[in-house]
Amino acid sequence: MPKIVDHDERREEVAGAVWRTIARRGIEGATVREIAAAAACSTGVVSHYFRDKDELLVFALRLAHQRAAQRMAAPVAHQPPVKALRSVILEALPLDEERRIEWRIWISFWGHAVGHARLLAEHHKRNREWHHLVLSLLRAAQRERQLVLRLPIDSSADALLALVDGIGVRATLEPETLPPRRQIEMVDSHLAAIAQPPRRTRR
Amino acid sequence: MPKIVDHDERREEVAGAVWRTIARRGIEGATVREIAAAAACSTGVVSHYFRDKDELLVFALRLAHQRAAQRMAAPVAHQPPVKALRSVILEALPLDEERRIEWRIWISFWGHAVGHARLLAEHHKRNREWHHLVLSLLRAAQRERQLVLRLPIDSSADALLALVDGIGVRATLEPETLPPRRQIEMVDSHLAAIAQPPRRTRR
Repeated sequence: MPKIVDHDERREEVAGAVWRTIARRGIEGATVREIAAAAACSTGVVSHYFRDKDELLVFALRLAHQRAAQRMAAPVAHQPPVKALRSVILEALPLDEERRIEWRIWISFWGHAVGHARLLAEHHKRNREWHHLVLSLLRAAQRERQLVLRLPIDSSADALLALVDGIGVRATLEPETLPPRRQIEMVDSHLAAIAQPPRRTRR
Repeated sequence: MPKIVDHDERREEVAGAVWRTIARRGIEGATVREIAAAAACSTGVVSHYFRDKDELLVFALRLAHQRAAQRMAAPVAHQPPVKALRSVILEALPLDEERRIEWRIWISFWGHAVGHARLLAEHHKRNREWHHLVLSLLRAAQRERQLVLRLPIDSSADALLALVDGIGVRATLEPETLPPRRQIEMVDSHLAAIAQPPRRTRR
């Protein structure tokens, strides 16, 4: 009798195995064989999701973005914009093991995507959502008079996005030079520098 | 009669061929065969310099750092520190085709270096020189009272280094979102934000 397979569940299992394998072996060491072993399934099942390294990278990239987006959803929904902005930026930085794995995936992906139109398109798609989130939080913070930006909003967003990528790259490639505490200090200094607190109405 | 080969000259020829091949085919497309064709020599000669992809990446990384360092030498020697600082930062950004090739090499290298101790060690070595240069120019500018930093000097240097990496990554992967003019604006805004001009003595 053929097994009835729940495809969403299977997908979740494979995703979990990809994550655990990358955590243990790095993205270069995450082969179809290793992932199949971690998922306790055949290499055929794993190959159904990605046939080569590029497809594994796309799968891992989507997974990393999905995990980051899930962590960001709560602050965005429940915190005032200026606090949510700080929260999502910290969620995007390599401050703990989960986020360090995400960064290793992003940097591996970038390295393979240089000069590779299909992978670059995937990167742009994910990155646009991230840029949009930062910009919309800055806009909301400004609208609700929680901060007054010193520069035009697009410039403020670009500087923040550059800060996140710059910190992320260095903290991933040279973790000892930027421990979590230093990364957080850099974000707070930057946020203090780009915005003035709003003036209170004097009574 | 065996040909007498000038090894330095040969090395220069191979380096030039590596550069032209990467410019044309990207780092992924730069194979030993392609490089040998560009250098008009045998694949054996090329393989003498690098036996595999990792060694090609190390060779290309050194070449990229060397070219950048050469461009930075003149401003460092001839400009006052605060001006030299801006010049070396602009030399480090992907503002023209040569620097765009360098950035493609750096990002490809990072992608391969994640979780790869030997490549990471090479990255650290090159990066330390760069960090040292930025820090020493900041220190000189401060000592000569050309600027007054708002933050401790190490924090100012870290923020600048993060800015360069953040701009470089985005301008390389999504060039249309950060054309050269925008990159320069970001650097100038940042420099204006981290430092106050020194106070003149009142008379």
